Order: sequence, then structure tokens, then C-alpha cells
Amino acid sequence: MTKGELKMAKNTNIRISLPAVCFVWQIAMIILFGVFIRYDEESDTHWIEHRRKKNISTNLENDFYYRYPSFQDVHVMIFVGFGFLMTFLKRYSFGGVGFNFLIAAFGIQWALLMQGWFHHLDEHDWKIKIGVENLINADFCVASCLIAYGACLGKVSPVQLMVLTLFGVTLFAVEEYIILELLHAKDAGGSMVIHTFGAYYGLTISWVLYRPLLSQSKHLQGSVYHSDVFAMIGTLFLWMYWPSFNSAIADHGDGQHRAVINTYLALASSVLTTFAISSISQNNGKLDMVHIQNATLAGGVAMGTASEFMITPYGSLIVGFCSGIVSTFGYLFLTPFMEKTLKIQDTCGIHNLHAMPGVIGGIVGAITAASASESVYGQEGLINTFDFKDAVANRTVNIQGGYQAAALFVAIAFGLVGGALVGGILKLPIWGDPADVNCFDDDVYWEVIVHPNMNHATSIPDV
Amino acid sequence: MTKGELKMAKNTNIRISLPAVCFVWQIAMIILFGVFIRYDEESDTHWIEHRRKKNISTNLENDFYYRYPSFQDVHVMIFVGFGFLMTFLKRYSFGGVGFNFLIAAFGIQWALLMQGWFHHLDEHDWKIKIGVENLINADFCVASCLIAYGACLGKVSPVQLMVLTLFGVTLFAVEEYIILELLHAKDAGGSMVIHTFGAYYGLTISWVLYRPLLSQSKHLQGSVYHSDVFAMIGTLFLWMYWPSFNSAIADHGDGQHRAVINTYLALASSVLTTFAISSISQNNGKLDMVHIQNATLAGGVAMGTASEFMITPYGSLIVGFCSGIVSTFGYLFLTPFMEKTLKIQDTCGIHNLHAMPGVIGGIVGAITAASASESVYGQEGLINTFDFKDAVANRTVNIQGGYQAAALFVAIAFGLVGGALVGGILKLPIWGDPADVNCFDDDVYWEVIVHPNMNHATSIPDV
Amino acid sequence: MTKGELKMAKNTNIRISLPAVCFVWQIAMIILFGVFIRYDEESDTHWIEHRRKKNISTNLENDFYYRYPSFQDVHVMIFVGFGFLMTFLKRYSFGGVGFNFLIAAFGIQWALLMQGWFHHLDEHDWKIKIGVENLINADFCVASCLIAYGACLGKVSPVQLMVLTLFGVTLFAVEEYIILELLHAKDAGGSMVIHTFGAYYGLTISWVLYRPLLSQSKHLQGSVYHSDVFAMIGTLFLWMYWPSFNSAIADHGDGQHRAVINTYLALASSVLTTFAISSISQNNGKLDMVHIQNATLAGGVAMGTASEFMITPYGSLIVGFCSGIVSTFGYLFLTPFMEKTLKIQDTCGIHNLHAMPGVIGGIVGAITAASASESVYGQEGLINTFDFKDAVANRTVNIQGGYQAAALFVAIAFGLVGGALVGGILKLPIWGDPADVNCFDDDVYWEVIVHPNMNHATSIPDV
Repeated sequence: MTKGELKMAKNTNIRISLPAVCFVWQIAMIILFGVFIRYDEESDTHWIEHRRKKNISTNLENDFYYRYPSFQDVHVMIFVGFGFLMTFLKRYSFGGVGFNFLIAAFGIQWALLMQGWFHHLDEHDWKIKIGVENLINADFCVASCLIAYGACLGKVSPVQLMVLTLFGVTLFAVEEYIILELLHAKDAGGSMVIHTFGAYYGLTISWVLYRPLLSQSKHLQGSVYHSDVFAMIGTLFLWMYWPSFNSAIADHGDGQHRAVINTYLALASSVLTTFAISSISQNNGKLDMVHIQNATLAGGVAMGTASEFMITPYGSLIVGFCSGIVSTFGYLFLTPFMEKTLKIQDTCGIHNLHAMPGVIGGIVGAITAASASESVYGQEGLINTFDFKDAVANRTVNIQGGYQAAALFVAIAFGLVGGALVGGILKLPIWGDPADVNCFDDDVYWEVIVHPNMNHATSIPDV
Repeated sequence: MTKGELKMAKNTNIRISLPAVCFVWQIAMIILFGVFIRYDEESDTHWIEHRRKKNISTNLENDFYYRYPSFQDVHVMIFVGFGFLMTFLKRYSFGGVGFNFLIAAFGIQWALLMQGWFHHLDEHDWKIKIGVENLINADFCVASCLIAYGACLGKVSPVQLMVLTLFGVTLFAVEEYIILELLHAKDAGGSMVIHTFGAYYGLTISWVLYRPLLSQSKHLQGSVYHSDVFAMIGTLFLWMYWPSFNSAIADHGDGQHRAVINTYLALASSVLTTFAISSISQNNGKLDMVHIQNATLAGGVAMGTASEFMITPYGSLIVGFCSGIVSTFGYLFLTPFMEKTLKIQDTCGIHNLHAMPGVIGGIVGAITAASASESVYGQEGLINTFDFKDAVANRTVNIQGGYQAAALFVAIAFGLVGGALVGGILKLPIWGDPADVNCFDDDVYWEVIVHPNMNHATSIPDV
Repeated sequence: MTKGELKMAKNTNIRISLPAVCFVWQIAMIILFGVFIRYDEESDTHWIEHRRKKNISTNLENDFYYRYPSFQDVHVMIFVGFGFLMTFLKRYSFGGVGFNFLIAAFGIQWALLMQGWFHHLDEHDWKIKIGVENLINADFCVASCLIAYGACLGKVSPVQLMVLTLFGVTLFAVEEYIILELLHAKDAGGSMVIHTFGAYYGLTISWVLYRPLLSQSKHLQGSVYHSDVFAMIGTLFLWMYWPSFNSAIADHGDGQHRAVINTYLALASSVLTTFAISSISQNNGKLDMVHIQNATLAGGVAMGTASEFMITPYGSLIVGFCSGIVSTFGYLFLTPFMEKTLKIQDTCGIHNLHAMPGVIGGIVGAITAASASESVYGQEGLINTFDFKDAVANRTVNIQGGYQAAALFVAIAFGLVGGALVGGILKLPIWGDPADVNCFDDDVYWEVIVHPNMNHATSIPDV
């Protein structure tokens, strides 16, 4: 059997399925957008009349000017941050950044619809009115699917990823509705809604799709020198813009301002503990790029829920301190344990970067909420921060803490159950996923030029 | 004849010409700036008096705060976006990103003058008063020359590129004046003014400079693994920040807001159709990085004219849908056809990414303008969006549509005629351009360290 | 002696020292933050009450909305800009971007404390109240240490870098206090405070740590093709966002606006002169990537002090023109001279990029200040720009010019004396720095996978 035949032992031809999915779903988007999606009053040409009616003195009060810089930062995190973070494999950089691009571009459209139906459906005309905040929320929603992709990186076909995203966005919208609207929990940066859900969703899918013979592609399951530098582009853009992520949809004014400070500090702190644990764990104290690329971000994840709260600057440092340690230890001990014992193959280590810090973030949020007080927040500040209005006007901070904790369980449950269901669907032998021996190889789904003088083994870049 | 002599068969020594051009032109800029350019009232220390006089309540009403975030995004597109998109060649990454840097840095200065003379010359003191909007427009102007560079990538000397930029900016300013001021056409994101003009300008130059023996450097006219990843940096920063490009000089308030939403959606849609066509066109459905790097951006180009209009969210999706398809088909069929039959060598495929989507954008803009109505826009909204004031106070939307169509022809005509003239100038044998065998090789204009153990053939990175 | 033993001729084991420093200092940060750092009135939940009390009509007047976009740009410069600029070495990219990450993450925390004690200590409760402007200033402060790192790149251990940062931030805060508060000099973009100080600090350290046998690692002291492209990521993000750097803490309104214009122009101008000098200095006019990566930025450095002033647009071009020339000449002649004669080994050439342009910037600032006039600035404008209020209400522009010049000497003195002291500390044989033969090699402090079929000599990437 030649190399080519061996590769095709499993049918990875996606020439029909991928175009079909892209075309049909995109056309469906157009139809559904035609039926449901309209500009909101701030992005409609009637804004000028709306301004006069509401006595708004300046165009600057258009939410666009409050949120657009943060939106663009979040947008960079989704496409360059997540995308380049997944280029670290020596021969799967195209798939890492390219499929991330594909599913995010689809996911944001579907998210505008799903989140719109649940959160923004106008009761009068049954339309969804969108503005810049919806774009941010769509990016947020898609982030959970990109996290899930991290667990499956290199082992699934782009068609499977589209399915993962379709269901992921759907589940997300429901989960988000339950957590934010029904439980009235706060989660500005999505420790629970985005990270915890996304991570358990991806891990469960990876568990269902367990590949016992994955070691056959072990020679490709690592980085080379330059692919590690590419991944640092992703790491740094995630790290730098995380304050925007956690503040993008926070309250105007002090809410956004405080979320930035808290996240900035938590991130800085987790860098130091990541370097510490990485160094202490190796002979001669040598650092491991995998830790630096990932665990340094744990502080941002863990600050997602409490970023708006008066957690205090040193509180933020403590959160980053702990999450950097937990995350790095995860890479050292938990990932190998999970692969061996729990049969969960987690390519990017999302359990360490998103699941555990996400859970920490949820717990920190619950505790911080429960211990909030009027003496610290001020009477109005407390009401504003927790939105103790209307139906929840009489909620106490203790009860709020309880609901925060409940929200964490909802996120985990949605991840586990949703992942199991979607994993089952993705296990069907129709999606063109690669054989174990061809995992982590761009050659399966991309036209890759292999130098003619090289045989397959040496065509892998060594540096 | 040794390798060195063979390479020098054509004189590529630019040791006199490049420094001379850089020095003389930069000194000319200083003199012209000294004569003509001043701060405008919002960037002058008299702003505080101006505020009092105009009864402006807050510093935030300084246009700086409306436009600076968008300006920075556009700035990234010009230097990192266009620059890295052109690093895809295996051995011309220095030239791609480096010459892009040089000509953009020169072009923005010259554009401030040219656009100032045509649009912003103060009738009282004959000075050009600049502020942040001028900086954005200068970046826009230069974009057209960077697009033109894309057609010539690897085949021209930096001196030629400086000449291309000098005339390109000049032509742009005239064309822009005709389209925006005389025809009073709308083109916030420059589908016509920037993309259509720039693409036909570059294609015509490339046609005049046709190299029949270009196949001699065929071994360099392709990518390697890591250069394709570098190019994705350019692609993604262009893609992510395109909403800022199309909204940067749109109307304050709903204008900028709507332009962002429309562009965001068109871009998302063209990603899916690009992946679809790329996959369907290859054996086994394998994706081609060239398509992903370029055609995914077509939606942004095609939304340039209509971004401010009430094209509706699903209208934006349709525009992206079509332009992604057209652009990818262009790479598959038109580029080879143009090279073989029309003798147009288009290194980056700008015909597919800028010319065709630009024309689509112009047509979409004309149709959308012609079908605008008071019932959709509101009376004031219609006037604001199309600036139906002063000399054009009585213009109807139908007539506006006609002028939009006329503007498209002006852009094409300027590109074709200007390109022919400038191509003629660039054909003179004095500019130090490389021989056919030395095209796409950084070694001609850059100090490149070649490993001593390698001969020329194998010094090309294989991965 | 095997390769491994040879390498360990000098003990580079940092398994105890690096984790110890990271842990202990991070815990110290937490304690000090707990004692001293609080949210300021704009990031505290009491903001709503503060607004009412001060009669602030809108949340937009929160300083967050004036400064956050600039802050994020500066943040990118610190972590991606400086980080990737230092990836140019063929085998020290991990160390370049990784250690930059580590020391910046520590430095910003320590800077918040040090700058807070000197500038923002509340006299009533002895707390430091932080907001977005403090975050920007912390990033600024750390920039000086990253500049100093540039001189030492590849020759020091991460533990030494942490010490360099600890003392660098401390010295910076004192120097900044003297220059900005005592001398009341203006330095919005830090030509003196950041660049001049940081560069002389790093150069003096490098002089103290002189390695006579550094040529033993000469084979690693250069770039390869792709590492030069990585470095261009750093260059361009620094270049593009420098207008934000020089305007981030400038006055609201025209101050920020003017600083952006001046910096944009100076940078553009220095690109052209850098290309000119680089080309004229080589056979056949070939360009040198080292110049393009660095000297193109000189205009931004040199515009740091005068960016807020009415230096006029053509004045900015002249500053960029000269500093690009000076900087490139520095790389051509001064760096080799300094290494040979002055025994200063300056890996990144910070003398050319930061020291000389910084001094130029200081001088330009002094001259521009001394020649300011009411006829140009307007009466109020002059007072606002130079803050001629309170204790310095009667200061004339001539005297201001004198103080500006004095500030430059303070910055240089702090760099030289501080660098000598810290260099002496870093010379102690306890910090795990590499042997001369192991400089510029990531293998010392990082887990680097070397391909098994390659010996050490050829494991260096050639392309």
C-alpha cells in the first residue's frame, strides 16, 4: 500500500460535505436574517429622531462610542488570539488558524440569531434589533466553541467543527438565557457562561471521540521552534486584550473601568506564578513554552465573573496568583492523567486554561457577590452593580451568591450533557474525520506543498 | 559566468537612486508641509477658545474621540494588514512587508498634501488644516497604492514603487475629488475610490511591465509553510479591522454604527463561501491557502460603498456571499487566464480581491442608493445619509444612483489610463528592476544571509 | 566532556532562584497592594454619587473613555511590540518574547506602587487610588526596563532581568518624580523619562557585565529569514501605535489630538531616511533588516517630549528626518565602535534607537518650549500646554526651556549611576547567567526540542 492509500484508509474527502454545509447554512442565515434581524435604534437612520425624542444631547451617547474599541479588541482575540494560539503544532498551523476562522465566521451569524431570539426579540414586531453590543455578544458566544475546538484540535474534520459550532452556539444561547435572565447571575467576562461551558463541552466531545491509537501520529503532536513563536502571537493578543473582554459589556462608567483594572492585575499576577511553577517543575529550571502560552492567561479567565465587582486590586492579584498555579499544575499532571485514565485527549489543554480557571472564576464570583455590602459599594453602587431592580429588587447579596453558584452548575451541566449529545452525533462515520495516523496533519484538509526531495518523515519542519 | 554575475545581468544597483529618491522627496515634503500644512482648530492650542466660541460643552466633542480608535485600526490594516498579506512568498517576505512600509510612509505624507489641496484648502490663508480625519484619509489614499503593489509584488524595484506611489496618490486625489465633490457620490469605505481604482491602476502597470520569461523564477513564485502562516496575520488583521475601515469616516452616530454592522456581516458571509468554493474545486476537497488568505476579505471590499446605507443586515450577508464566490472563482480561473491570454501577471491576485469585489461594491452602492426611500430612512435620515444639502439639496435617490454608477466608471478610467501612463514611465530602463530570473527574490534588494553549506537552489526554505 | 557538561561549565540552573523570585515578589505585591492600592473615584462603585456631586452629565466624562483606546495601544506596544522586536535572533526568540512578558508583567505591578507613592498618594488615607491613567503610566515605566533589556538580550538570566526590573522601576519612579514634579518639565511621550533613562540604564549595565569572550557564541548572534519577519511584527506594532504612546497621557482635547499628528508625521519621515541611509551604506544599495526594524522608530522616540507642543507638522517631519539618519548611522558605525572600544555590547542597538533619539527628543523639547509664544499658542493655550499654574504660574517659556534641558541631564544621570549600581549587583555570581559560549541560546532556559538527527551545530535553523 502506498503512502497515499494508507492515508485514505479513512475517507477524509470533504469535497461534497464541506461546501454543502457552508452553502446551505449560509443561505439559511440569509433567510433567517431577512426574516428576523434589523438595525436597532442606534444604528438606524432614525437615530437622529430617536435622539431628539429622548433628548440625547450628543452622538457620543450612541452606545457605539462606549463599546466599539472594546468590541474590536474582543474581535482580535477571537480571530487572532484563539487562531494563533492554535498554530503551535508543527504541522497543523493552517488547520489551527484556518478552521478557527471558518467556524467563528459562521458562529457569529448563528449567535446573532440564537441570542437575539432569547434576549432581544422585540415583542411588537418579532424582530431582533442589533447594535454593537450584539456583535460583542456574538463574539463571546463563539469563543465557547473555539475553546471546545481546542480540545479536538487536529483530530476532527472541518465539517465536524461546523456541527460542533452549530450545536455549541445553540446550547450556549439557552445556557446563557438561564444563567443571566432566569437566575439573574452576573457574568460580565463569562467565566461560567463562556469558559466553563465551552471547556466541558469540548472535553466531553473529545471523550466521546476518544482515539485509542492516537499515538500513531505522535510525531506530529508537538511544536517546532517557529510554530511556538507563532503561538505566542495568539497568547499575547489574548493576554493584552483580556481587560477589554471582561469589560466589553460591563456597565458604562465605573463598571467598565473597574473590570479593566481587575483583569489587568489578575493577568499580571498569573504570569509570575506560571513562570514559577513551570521552572520549578523541570530539570535545571528550564521553562516550558506550553505553560507560558496558556497558563499565563488563567488570570483573565478566572476574573471573568467578578471583574465588575469591588473585588479590590489585591483581590484580583490573589485570583491571578492561584489560577496561574492551578493551570500550570494542570498541564504538568492533570492532562497526562486525563488522557491515560479518563480517556480524554485534550490537545490544547483547555481543561487547564478554561475549565479549572473558569470554575475558580465562578466560585470567586459567588463569594464576592455574597460578601458585597453597602458600606463598600454604596447603596446605589450595589444596586447598579448587581442590577437589583424590577423582579429582583429585593434580592440580598447572600441570595445573589447562591444564584451565582447555581449558575456555575448550570454551565457545567450544559457542557457535559451537550458535549455528550454532540459527541454522539460527531461519532457518526460520515464527517470525514482523519484516521489516527493522520491526525495533526494539515496535509489531510489543505493543499500543502511538500518539497520533492523530501520523504514524508523529513518533510516535517525541524526548527 | 558565476551566480553573482548572472544575477547582475540586469543592473539592480539602487545605491544612488533609492537614497536619492528618499532624501529629495522627503525634503520636498518638509518644504511643502512648511508652506501649506497647519493644525486644524481641533488639534491647535486655540481649541479651548474655539470650544468657548462654538459653545462646545466637552472635550469629547473633539473629532479625535469619534475617530481615533477607527484611525488606529485602519493604520494597522495599512502597515500590518497589507504588509503581512504580502509576506506569503517563500523568499520575498522582506520585500513584501518592507517595501509596503516604505511606500506607505511616503504616501501618507504626499496624500496629506494632495488631498488637502483638493479638499481642505482654506480659502483665506491658503493653508491645509489637518486633524485625525485627514490622517485616516491619507491612510485610505495610500491603500490604493498598496493594492497596486500587490499586482507587481516581486517584479519591481523599490524605486519603481516610490514612483508608482507618487503618481498613484496624485491620481487618487484627483479621482477622489471628481467622485466625492463633483459627482457627490458616496463611498465611505472606498469600493470605487480605493479598491477599484487601485486594482486597475496596478493591473495596468503590471500589463505594461509584462515579463514574458517570468517562468524563469517560477521556483520562487510560491509559498512555504511558515510564509503562509505569516500571511494569515495580514489576512486576519485586515478582516477584523475592516469594519473600522468602512466606518472610519462615516457620519457620527448611526452612520459609523451601521457601517460596522454591515461590514462585519458581509465579511462573515464571504468566509463561508470562500471555504466552500475552495474546497469544491480541489481533489478530496482540500483547501487552498491562497483563497483563504484573500477571498475571505472580498465581503469587506464589496461593502465599501453601501456600508453607510440601509442595506439591511441580510443584504450585507448577500453581498458577502456573492463576492466570496466571485473572488475565489477569480483565483481559480481568471488569474491563470489573465496571465496566459491577457498578459497580465498579477502576483497577489488583486483582480480577484480588489477589482471585482470593488466593482460589485460600486454596483451595489448604486442600486442601494437608487432604491433608498423616505419610508425606510426617514426624511432626515435620507438627507443625512446622502448629504442632500446645498448644491444637491434637490437630488433624488434615482439620480444619486446614476451618479454612483458614473463614479464607478471614473474610478475604472483613472485606473486604466493612469496605470498605462505610469507603467510607461516605469518601463524606462533606469529604475533598477530585477531580471526575470531574479524576481521574487529578496536577495536582490536585501542583505540576506544564506547558509554557507547550502547552494542557491536549496537555500530556499522548504517548510 | 559531553555537550551537556560543556554547557553547564557555568551554572545556569534557575530552578530555585527563578521560582523563588517570582513567588516571593508576587506575594509581596499582593501584600503591598492590600495595604496601599484602591480604586479611584472613576473606577469605584461610588462613581455615580461622585458624578452627581460634581455635576458630571454623562458617563463618557469618566477618564476611561478618553484614555482606554490609547491604553490598549500602549499595552500592545509593551508586550507585542517590544516582545517581538526582540525575536530577531535565530535562536533566542523564546527568550526575547518570553522574558519580555515576564518582566513586564512584574514591572507593571511594582510600577503602580512606586509611581503611586511618588505621585498619587492620598494625603488623607495614605492610599494610592488607581484608574486607567495609572495603568498607562505603569506600562510606560516598564518600557524603560524593556529598553534596558534590549542591550542585555541573550546575555543574562531571567533572574537577573527580574532584578534589573525591580531596580529599574524604582529608579524610574524617582527620576520621573524629579523631572515631572520638581522640575515641572513636560515629557508626555517620555523621550527623556523613558527612552533616555532606559537606554543609558541598560547600556551601563551591559558595560559592567562586559563579556570579553562573547565571540564564542557569534554563530548565534544573528538572525535567520523567518526570525527577521517575526521581528517586523514588533517593529510595525510599535510604529503604528506610537502616536498613541505619545498622546496617551497628553491633555484631553487638542493635546492628545496634536500629539498624534506630530508623532505620525515624525515616524513617517524617519522611515524614508532610514531606508536612504541603509541603502547608501551597502554594496548595490541592499537594505539591512536591522536598520528597517529599528531606526524607522527613531522618529517616535524623538517626538516624545515635544509631541504636545505646537512644533508644527513640518517641524515634526524634520525631527523624524534627523533622528532616522542619526539612528541608522549609529547602527552602521557607533555600535561596532562601542563594542570594540568602549566595551559596551548592545545586542539590540538601543543606543541608536533609544539613547540618541531620546536625547534629540529632549533637546527638541527644550528648544520648542523655550521658543513657545502667546502669539502661536494663545494665552490660554500656552498656560494649558505647559501647565503654568500654581507654583509655576509665573514661569516663562525661556525658564521652562532651561528646566527641560535640566531634565534631560537628570534622565542621563539616573541611567548612568543607576546602571552602574545595578550592574554591580548583577555581576554577583549567583544569578545563573549563561557562559559566553551559551549566550543567545534558548536552550539554556527553555525546553527546546532539537531534532534527533541533527547535531548541535546544524540544529540552528538556516532559513
